[in-house]
Amino acid sequence: MTQSIKTSVDAVVFGYDPEEGVSVLLITRKYEPFRKSWALPGGLVKNDESLEQAVNRELKEEAGIDVNYLEQLYTFGKPDRDPRNRVISVAYYGLVRPKDYQLSADTDAEDVAWFSIKKLPKLAFDHKHIVDVAIKRLQGKLAYEPVGFELLEKKFPFSDLEKLYQSLLSHELDRRNFKKKIMNYGFLEELEESIQRGAGRPARLYQFNKKKYFELKENGYNFDLFI
Amino acid sequence: MTQSIKTSVDAVVFGYDPEEGVSVLLITRKYEPFRKSWALPGGLVKNDESLEQAVNRELKEEAGIDVNYLEQLYTFGKPDRDPRNRVISVAYYGLVRPKDYQLSADTDAEDVAWFSIKKLPKLAFDHKHIVDVAIKRLQGKLAYEPVGFELLEKKFPFSDLEKLYQSLLSHELDRRNFKKKIMNYGFLEELEESIQRGAGRPARLYQFNKKKYFELKENGYNFDLFI
Repeated sequence: MTQSIKTSVDAVVFGYDPEEGVSVLLITRKYEPFRKSWALPGGLVKNDESLEQAVNRELKEEAGIDVNYLEQLYTFGKPDRDPRNRVISVAYYGLVRPKDYQLSADTDAEDVAWFSIKKLPKLAFDHKHIVDVAIKRLQGKLAYEPVGFELLEKKFPFSDLEKLYQSLLSHELDRRNFKKKIMNYGFLEELEESIQRGAGRPARLYQFNKKKYFELKENGYNFDLFI
Repeated sequence: MTQSIKTSVDAVVFGYDPEEGVSVLLITRKYEPFRKSWALPGGLVKNDESLEQAVNRELKEEAGIDVNYLEQLYTFGKPDRDPRNRVISVAYYGLVRPKDYQLSADTDAEDVAWFSIKKLPKLAFDHKHIVDVAIKRLQGKLAYEPVGFELLEKKFPFSDLEKLYQSLLSHELDRRNFKKKIMNYGFLEELEESIQRGAGRPARLYQFNKKKYFELKENGYNFDLFI
């Protein structure tokens, strides 16, 4: 019997903002099934494009954005995950700063918006499950890679980094050990500058040393950022 | 235009044996393209089976074995990876003890054998690339999970664990720090028993404490086994 399985891609684009915490980019579907439901941006792969090209095209078409760096998350292939016919979905994920993007719904999507991962609407298909898997992956990644340095300002008070980590973790961050561990690795530099935010004492600024970080990585270092 | 992309699965089954090191399970193809070439076991997904069922069925059909635990590795989707038509492949990987398996080539395969990862034959399609990605993943996993405790005897001298790690790593294992780190976590117990192998002093035996290990995991522990 001829195979009748279609291939799609879906994108889990996480946004981090110090005020809003972590959010995920969603669109509303224009067509059945799940018409008007919130869903992840995504769609069928064209015959001549790579999976990466497909996910970038869909993000452009449905949300009006270009996301440079997406990583493959997982391929979801349960036979009944789409009510129309069998579709496997190769899901991608990434982490960006929402304020760097101007959203605009286009073909196939009626609306597009960021939703806090703590207040997600009901999602189409198995997209809630896909988002959950992506959150777990991101949390796992936090432990062995300083994810998200790109999400902070070039120079930042240490509390901004703590806040980023805390907003992604499901448990309380052990702040003291976190700082000790991260400073020990030597890829984060304490600067001679401070910043005054609101009342209270000025906060010392820090800066990520990318060169040092990649040196450590190349030497096979595995970071373990928590206790 | 109708999508004409097919979905297949491929299995990278690694074997570990203290004498032979790390090997990978390969089959020879019965049909064109790449007839008589060595390749990973795998094939097209049937319309009504899950991806996991497909990879298990293919391993049974082509190598005569059941591998209980396979994890999804990555989905390979370059448009030209198959000379016939476009096929994306969802690859799975796992690590087993070759001596637990009796191989037998069946439908679609002419021959089946274990090959040392250090002496791989020329492989069909992009299978060499898939094996490389799987080796990298396994190496990465070694650093944050005590992979492969299932591969050793229930009680083993510490040198067996070192040998397992060394056979998978591309750099020299820092034996002193490795032992210090692993013992600090507390999921490996030194027993009051020793073993005599060949000449020389008897070697102390160790045992993996799974209960302790899963307790640590549940508490969000991230292992970092090297320096």
